[in-house]
Amino acid sequence: MFFSPLCAVVPANAKTASENNLERPKGPQKEESMPRIILASQSPRRKQLLSQIGIKNFEILVPGGEESYDPSLSPEEIVSSICRKKGESARTLAGDPSAIIITADTMVFLDGLRLGKPRSREEAFSMLSALSGKTHHVCTGVTVSQGSRMETRAETTAVTFRPLTDTEKWAYIHTGEPFDKAGAYGVQGPAALFIPRVEGDYFNVMGLPLALLGEMLAGFGVKLFSDEEELH
Amino acid sequence: MFFSPLCAVVPANAKTASENNLERPKGPQKEESMPRIILASQSPRRKQLLSQIGIKNFEILVPGGEESYDPSLSPEEIVSSICRKKGESARTLAGDPSAIIITADTMVFLDGLRLGKPRSREEAFSMLSALSGKTHHVCTGVTVSQGSRMETRAETTAVTFRPLTDTEKWAYIHTGEPFDKAGAYGVQGPAALFIPRVEGDYFNVMGLPLALLGEMLAGFGVKLFSDEEELH
Repeated sequence: MFFSPLCAVVPANAKTASENNLERPKGPQKEESMPRIILASQSPRRKQLLSQIGIKNFEILVPGGEESYDPSLSPEEIVSSICRKKGESARTLAGDPSAIIITADTMVFLDGLRLGKPRSREEAFSMLSALSGKTHHVCTGVTVSQGSRMETRAETTAVTFRPLTDTEKWAYIHTGEPFDKAGAYGVQGPAALFIPRVEGDYFNVMGLPLALLGEMLAGFGVKLFSDEEELH
Repeated sequence: MFFSPLCAVVPANAKTASENNLERPKGPQKEESMPRIILASQSPRRKQLLSQIGIKNFEILVPGGEESYDPSLSPEEIVSSICRKKGESARTLAGDPSAIIITADTMVFLDGLRLGKPRSREEAFSMLSALSGKTHHVCTGVTVSQGSRMETRAETTAVTFRPLTDTEKWAYIHTGEPFDKAGAYGVQGPAALFIPRVEGDYFNVMGLPLALLGEMLAGFGVKLFSDEEELH
């Protein structure tokens, strides 16, 4: 297990490093002194985003679990509830009470309607047609757990599409981009051309709200950007 | 010169492909049928963003030109004026009236004050301290030209930083990220942890507003996502 210089892990209740014998190692860090960090998600975008914030090594674990939910709930409640279930399933699978487990679930909502991953080109076309010229909302639930402690929060970002021509929709579908993505688009690819405006956390639209995750991880003792020893 | 399947270039005034003998080649495309696309910028982020929207091959040209401007102008007028001068310089350098030349200039403004690229760790610290807990604005001017035709537009995005601790600022400075970036941060790196909110075009914060650029290029006949032949 190796953390980049940006990332130091200390117990959430630590008062000083010396009290806990957990001073940051100078060289390659010892596995013993670090909890495992597990990303319970298969999304390549989420892996990339963890890496972006300085968590270079982590394990991937894919929890099972159904995605059923009570449709009367709000978008934030829905993603939170699914994410919490995934988190519980991942915690059981991991079987390590010291591991920090990150789970996330992202959904796209347009006028109260949920847009999942398109199963055909025609469905992708319908989704892109629905998004065209409108503002929709991307909600991600994030669950962080360690042993019996589990926290879940949700983030919503508004995304505005410019009006699309049918030619543009089909050319975009032809790239294959829509098929593993809720709402039939990926903001980090050429669909950027369609999106003149987001309001909220951009990375949330990619599947993981990084500022929120950083705040949650800090509560679990994973301090990103706290490399005091290398200051000045 | 090679374009990805997403990118077809036709004259802006073309009525049909056959009228102009400019049918999209099936295999590797012929240089003769394509104008050169020149990005007049050294920014690695801008290169990456052009590639993201399907313009895979383009030339890089670095125009000279001073960055002087009238400080009584608005942020949008300032970036537009600098960008237009860069565009004129690049057009002269390129010396090819058929080439499509893209120039951009990005500036960061906080409460009417311009934040450039920090020249020292102390200056980076001052900039991050000024941005901490506040909303600032990132303005990019974009100039597209071909021969005597030149168009310039500007895009502004609001970016909100959460409050930062001094420890976080120094740890971030220690990564080296701030030094080639206006405002001392790069949104596409670990500074994502500091930024819970943007309002506007996210890619503008990286240095190139993609939706606006796509619209301007379309006006010059560079149609992204117009691959009619491969529909269905």
